[in-house]
Amino acid sequence: MPRPIVTLLTDFGTADHYAAAMKGVMMCICPDARFLDISHEVTPFAVAEAAYTLAQACRLFPQGTIHLVVVDPGVGSARRPILAEVGGHFFVAPDNGVLSMVFDAVPQHTIREITASEYFRQPVSQTFHGRDIFAPVAAHLAAGVRPEKFGEVIDDAVRFSFGKPVQTAEGSWTGIALKIDWFGNIITNFHADQFAWVAEQLFELRAGSGVVSSYFRSYAEAETKEPFVIKGSGGYLEISVNEESAAKFLGVEPGAPLQLCLPRRIGR
Amino acid sequence: MPRPIVTLLTDFGTADHYAAAMKGVMMCICPDARFLDISHEVTPFAVAEAAYTLAQACRLFPQGTIHLVVVDPGVGSARRPILAEVGGHFFVAPDNGVLSMVFDAVPQHTIREITASEYFRQPVSQTFHGRDIFAPVAAHLAAGVRPEKFGEVIDDAVRFSFGKPVQTAEGSWTGIALKIDWFGNIITNFHADQFAWVAEQLFELRAGSGVVSSYFRSYAEAETKEPFVIKGSGGYLEISVNEESAAKFLGVEPGAPLQLCLPRRIGR
Amino acid sequence: MPRPIVTLLTDFGTADHYAAAMKGVMMCICPDARFLDISHEVTPFAVAEAAYTLAQACRLFPQGTIHLVVVDPGVGSARRPILAEVGGHFFVAPDNGVLSMVFDAVPQHTIREITASEYFRQPVSQTFHGRDIFAPVAAHLAAGVRPEKFGEVIDDAVRFSFGKPVQTAEGSWTGIALKIDWFGNIITNFHADQFAWVAEQLFELRAGSGVVSSYFRSYAEAETKEPFVIKGSGGYLEISVNEESAAKFLGVEPGAPLQLCLPRRIGR
Repeated sequence: MPRPIVTLLTDFGTADHYAAAMKGVMMCICPDARFLDISHEVTPFAVAEAAYTLAQACRLFPQGTIHLVVVDPGVGSARRPILAEVGGHFFVAPDNGVLSMVFDAVPQHTIREITASEYFRQPVSQTFHGRDIFAPVAAHLAAGVRPEKFGEVIDDAVRFSFGKPVQTAEGSWTGIALKIDWFGNIITNFHADQFAWVAEQLFELRAGSGVVSSYFRSYAEAETKEPFVIKGSGGYLEISVNEESAAKFLGVEPGAPLQLCLPRRIGR
Repeated sequence: MPRPIVTLLTDFGTADHYAAAMKGVMMCICPDARFLDISHEVTPFAVAEAAYTLAQACRLFPQGTIHLVVVDPGVGSARRPILAEVGGHFFVAPDNGVLSMVFDAVPQHTIREITASEYFRQPVSQTFHGRDIFAPVAAHLAAGVRPEKFGEVIDDAVRFSFGKPVQTAEGSWTGIALKIDWFGNIITNFHADQFAWVAEQLFELRAGSGVVSSYFRSYAEAETKEPFVIKGSGGYLEISVNEESAAKFLGVEPGAPLQLCLPRRIGR
Repeated sequence: MPRPIVTLLTDFGTADHYAAAMKGVMMCICPDARFLDISHEVTPFAVAEAAYTLAQACRLFPQGTIHLVVVDPGVGSARRPILAEVGGHFFVAPDNGVLSMVFDAVPQHTIREITASEYFRQPVSQTFHGRDIFAPVAAHLAAGVRPEKFGEVIDDAVRFSFGKPVQTAEGSWTGIALKIDWFGNIITNFHADQFAWVAEQLFELRAGSGVVSSYFRSYAEAETKEPFVIKGSGGYLEISVNEESAAKFLGVEPGAPLQLCLPRRIGR
């Protein structure tokens, strides 16, 4: 039996003991569990960013991995904790849409509301369900408790459509900046498969203060410090500036609107 | 036999190789040891903050865990390295008060001065006792060397009373901001058990530029962007602003004084 | 058989899922591998800083450790991926000079160009060779694939001489700031063994806006907030200010030039 793997994705930051608190709780319940941090630096309360980051990372892990996601602006409110089985992976998370892109990727999945409080750490605080609900549930799951023990199947989990640009006219789509990464790359929600023509014909991508109309296949092709579009490692189009921050260059923040047009649509 | 667990708490930051250096040294001595980072982002030299973070995290780990704490402004001076056994946990740390809140929580404990230099990495540098003294001692302990091998019991370890507000008049107490967390929550040293009346009667908590007089049981109860008091996950009263930084809102920094009053005491 | 150890050193930052992506890929190939982060916060594209950090950290790990280094401004270009065996350790990295200080430390080493694309993750993206080339190669190596399977030995790997100051006159040397650490210590490329006389005779070290002429054996000896030279834990001379940032004090950035002189050489 390989050791159970639990990944962690939170907006807790890395300076506090909050992530370690969850791991301590899990170690007591499932001493064998192996922890792997995806990130603890999701922008606080940024559910869309977390959804993207999770969807990108989780698909690279082995079958059976448990993904513990605590980006939870609604802690202490009536939002439900959920446990989802998707494509052989498990997800323990608040029901706030953070699993939307995971659900989009694998249409067949089972979602349960977590109600079995015997698996919670008692007393449950009003401010740290990561430690008191989500982590112990993930650890009991890792220790072999079957999913159906945690609660009933539901069919009304919260879902958002972060990943889908909207066509606003012939040859014109509106999208968003899903995320700005550490290098300042702007990750758009234009999927490179759906917008493959960008690599081969004229386009204009309006982002922040600029209009981007170059496409390169690798960073090394860019010889100037001008922004360009590239197919990112996650499969989405990204806007980059070679060895600089495209986000700073263009003044684009996470969630900012983007407009992709065939040139004939621009300026009429 | 479960694998020995070594947690790490330092002010080394995460950009340098300093934490990894300690783990490399420990892996050579105890290949089986399992490492778990509590935080490497304690404010540099902030012993009180480290003491709070450690006390909060350590109690969640399994019995037998070894906690390696290197927040050590006195490195290279005459301050002693110590090894403490407290409630079935082990602590390897400089003798500078960083274990004060751990000692407060469990009155029975054994503290030894670490003098057995045969367990040190040689030559011992003057600037990195984490790598050369604390990590190898923790690793030898993890590998099964008995505590009494590292040095003699002492009874004069440095202790501070970070965790105790001072009553300054009838119905008036002075405390401090133990820590500002990643979300900007101000963690006070007013323990919610001792000051339970705050949840049920009028109070005023002076902090930075403001006076806080609301108490909520969860973040979700706060419908405005006004600061309020809440029972934090660590058991202490915290000052929060819903989805914003209370510390920025009020201009409070770590260590800042706080004044908690029954209202009749205020304004004379 | 102890579990294979893979260390990671990148400039990916810790907010994104990029480091976790590499670990997920490796876990699928070598479930037994044990991961240890050296740092993910190398200054983006700073090959010299990464070279120093790697050389400092790697020597503390057990024989057989695999060091995965992805500081790779040339991703997607013609720069080669390489696999090096140095002193019983393995290094998987881009051929951009990032292993220079490792090669300097152990003159005998074997370097191979990685060409065996059957060990890559397919399709190989143009922007994330860490996930698609370097991580899978490291994991296959950890799983027991022999080094010679990955490609042919080469003798023209890129090397820089970051670690060597240049003598510019009698009693005068020019060096650089290899790195600024989290505490603001300026790590120079003046090795304390080569410049041991600094501890015992008059010297002047010009750095940024100042001239440093004090030498202390420990931080505790410094009683003022003036910069001083100290032998750092990595063996190089460092410039420090007690409990403050020397880099800020002197206005020194990574890569900045430094001039070390015997006093008689100064002012002429």
